Amino acid sequence: MNQILEKELETQTQNFKSLITEYCRLESVAAQNRMMQETANWVENLLKATGFATRQLPVDGAPNYVYGTIKGKSDFTLLLYNHYDVQPETPLALWESPPFEVTEKDGKLVARGICDNKAELIARICAIRAIQATQGELPINITWIIEGEEEIGSTHFDAMTRQYGDLLKTDGALWEGGGFNEKEQAHIALGFRGMLYVEYSVELMAHDAHSGGAHTLPSAAWRLVKALASLKDDNGRVLIPGFYADVREPTAMEQQVAHDNVDLEQEGRAKAMYGIDAFLHNRSGYDLEVSVYEPTANIAGFLSGYTEPGVKTVLPAKAMAKMDFRLVPNQRPDDILAKLKAYLKAQGFDDVQVTKLGGGDPVVTPLEGAFVQKITQICQTFTEQEPKIITLVGGTLPLLGAMKNNVGVLGISTSGNPAYYGSGAHAPNEHIRVRDIPRAIEFNVFMFTQLGETEV
Amino acid sequence: MNQILEKELETQTQNFKSLITEYCRLESVAAQNRMMQETANWVENLLKATGFATRQLPVDGAPNYVYGTIKGKSDFTLLLYNHYDVQPETPLALWESPPFEVTEKDGKLVARGICDNKAELIARICAIRAIQATQGELPINITWIIEGEEEIGSTHFDAMTRQYGDLLKTDGALWEGGGFNEKEQAHIALGFRGMLYVEYSVELMAHDAHSGGAHTLPSAAWRLVKALASLKDDNGRVLIPGFYADVREPTAMEQQVAHDNVDLEQEGRAKAMYGIDAFLHNRSGYDLEVSVYEPTANIAGFLSGYTEPGVKTVLPAKAMAKMDFRLVPNQRPDDILAKLKAYLKAQGFDDVQVTKLGGGDPVVTPLEGAFVQKITQICQTFTEQEPKIITLVGGTLPLLGAMKNNVGVLGISTSGNPAYYGSGAHAPNEHIRVRDIPRAIEFNVFMFTQLGETEV
Repeated sequence: MNQILEKELETQTQNFKSLITEYCRLESVAAQNRMMQETANWVENLLKATGFATRQLPVDGAPNYVYGTIKGKSDFTLLLYNHYDVQPETPLALWESPPFEVTEKDGKLVARGICDNKAELIARICAIRAIQATQGELPINITWIIEGEEEIGSTHFDAMTRQYGDLLKTDGALWEGGGFNEKEQAHIALGFRGMLYVEYSVELMAHDAHSGGAHTLPSAAWRLVKALASLKDDNGRVLIPGFYADVREPTAMEQQVAHDNVDLEQEGRAKAMYGIDAFLHNRSGYDLEVSVYEPTANIAGFLSGYTEPGVKTVLPAKAMAKMDFRLVPNQRPDDILAKLKAYLKAQGFDDVQVTKLGGGDPVVTPLEGAFVQKITQICQTFTEQEPKIITLVGGTLPLLGAMKNNVGVLGISTSGNPAYYGSGAHAPNEHIRVRDIPRAIEFNVFMFTQLGETEV
Repeated sequence: MNQILEKELETQTQNFKSLITEYCRLESVAAQNRMMQETANWVENLLKATGFATRQLPVDGAPNYVYGTIKGKSDFTLLLYNHYDVQPETPLALWESPPFEVTEKDGKLVARGICDNKAELIARICAIRAIQATQGELPINITWIIEGEEEIGSTHFDAMTRQYGDLLKTDGALWEGGGFNEKEQAHIALGFRGMLYVEYSVELMAHDAHSGGAHTLPSAAWRLVKALASLKDDNGRVLIPGFYADVREPTAMEQQVAHDNVDLEQEGRAKAMYGIDAFLHNRSGYDLEVSVYEPTANIAGFLSGYTEPGVKTVLPAKAMAKMDFRLVPNQRPDDILAKLKAYLKAQGFDDVQVTKLGGGDPVVTPLEGAFVQKITQICQTFTEQEPKIITLVGGTLPLLGAMKNNVGVLGISTSGNPAYYGSGAHAPNEHIRVRDIPRAIEFNVFMFTQLGETEV
């Protein structure tokens, strides 16, 4: 690295801290529609100040999408994706510092949404500014789309791509990504699981009753407990008929990657982080790696009746639960929703209402494509070792289905976000490590530069 | 009724409103230990102002019991019982007026705790004052005990009666009671179900996780759903081995009373009030009446994960639930607790913690006793019809076991509380009807007077 760039990276690392502090202060909780327009404006202004031509893309019912383009030297156009929304900060009591105030402690920057996904946007901005300061014009064209609904399932991404898809046609895309692992490897994620997010609600009486009447009155809580319990057997296998019908086996390549990715040390770190003695079903090694090809049915929330301290003898009129199904190739959210509803009905749970709150297809990008191969090579050069390939991520980018079906653009996730396995996305005290910031910026500088140097 | 008494009852009905307004303003939520001492002081001062010799009975860990005695003309000593604590006001959103401000609307007085059980204490006070104003000395001795833990299971009533039992030895007792029914009948309740109240908690990780990891991480919510579901079969029958072992059949007298009490009109009113088409298991008539002899296992609360609006894709580290078991003769709370714990363990739910929060024996007072017969006669004279006998109430007075076992005093509940079937005890918008107030005071005047006129 030349001295000019090195000095500029130092400058940008300093800029990073002040930008991320401003950005995280914006309480952009999509689930609660908090400060969404204010945050969109802030992001648009940041892109504008970095030389992008910008606009906001309005879509009925959605917070505005922020869109920006900037010209570069080569013909290659890279699509960057980020989201400016964050998860709710609850449970608030578990935070050790105010969730929306970036707090530096023990070499960490703590704030809601910092690793997921505000730090990555800032790292990309800082990298672009470093290139502009040291090289002038960018080596490639960049198109950037930043949404405000990722954490609630990218509800309107399909509608947005139908309306504005032409603006997003590019030569390759980088979705939100992660950091480098403990072995200093870069990561390349080819695929993401899909999702179906539903809310169950049961309401059986006009109001709560004294529980002394429990021998005569219907219980919403019991109905929901029984309905949920009916969805899984005691081994955790989903009992909805046809749920596994479209699940394909991992390919030979995917199985090979799962073998290659076995990392017992990382398993130990993850267990320590979650304070668990064993993973589900006591899995380890290959079995653990390949288990991402199993779909899940997770209870994300459950509420009924009195839940504060002490005794209340109440028979609750209502009960609700939230569930996310993580779907694997080739499951489809609407098909699973129909099967779920049919099963509950067949089981006699007509009193359990099911409302879809979000969804997205599982999408896998082939390893063999020119763009993926180029990124793989960039990672290898930067880290001086093979990147870690992840064929399927456990999480979901609900936008991938829309990008594939409506725009025809596939992409990947890679390193360049100053996050690490312990960042605690979605959890209290979400954070990044200060020491990961300069490398994230430097990697983005290197990647954007390399993408401009050869045709892909 | 003579004119002097009639006028005095009018005066006391006016007094009732100002006293109940002051009393309900005291937010005596025992579950949250709110304003307990302040409320005890207020109640003690009210008794003192009515001529009682008073004291507060301190018991380790409990809000003070308020105790008062007043001498009368006869040797008969009546024990009155009330509680000054109330249920939590949650869910707050469903209240149409501030829960702790008595609000008069459509002929109703609305406030938390008004029917359960503050109005009854005030009606008794007003009756005593009416007698004092019109007759001078009371016809009987009255001993009064008022606790602050009824709504959390009278946790320390056993300890209190072991410490102060001698103060409570009396010739008969009136527990908290209800109003007159739609046929203008008085009620006499001979027995109450017992209770075991437990809290379940499951904690499987150090913190919440991103639900993209649901294929590898344990779910507290699923474990609790499965554990709860295992407690009942699909017909609502409790599956804990031995749960029904000590349940006795209703006696011939109890079955006869259940037959006598069938009231299809009242069933219709209750269904309309709860907004339900049918009672549990489609029961009606005798089957519905006698079903109180079945114990229940009610989910009073359940909480895990994200329960606010919208989507949060979280795998919760913790889950909790609250359950009250209503016990019938001759079940015992500690026996049921042991059986519950053994069953969960046998089912492999070692990760579900069970904590007892309250309990009490089911207690039934024989219909044949002199005191019960006297009250029956008083009710009949006052209403000019037979009172409605209830052999077993669905709710619980956890103090009854302590009164029976430690003091040797049995009692009953009867009318004299200006409440009605639609008062909504424990529910939002709890209320009494204004028109029920004068009759409640008058009935108490009549009852106290009659109890002094003959030996019982």
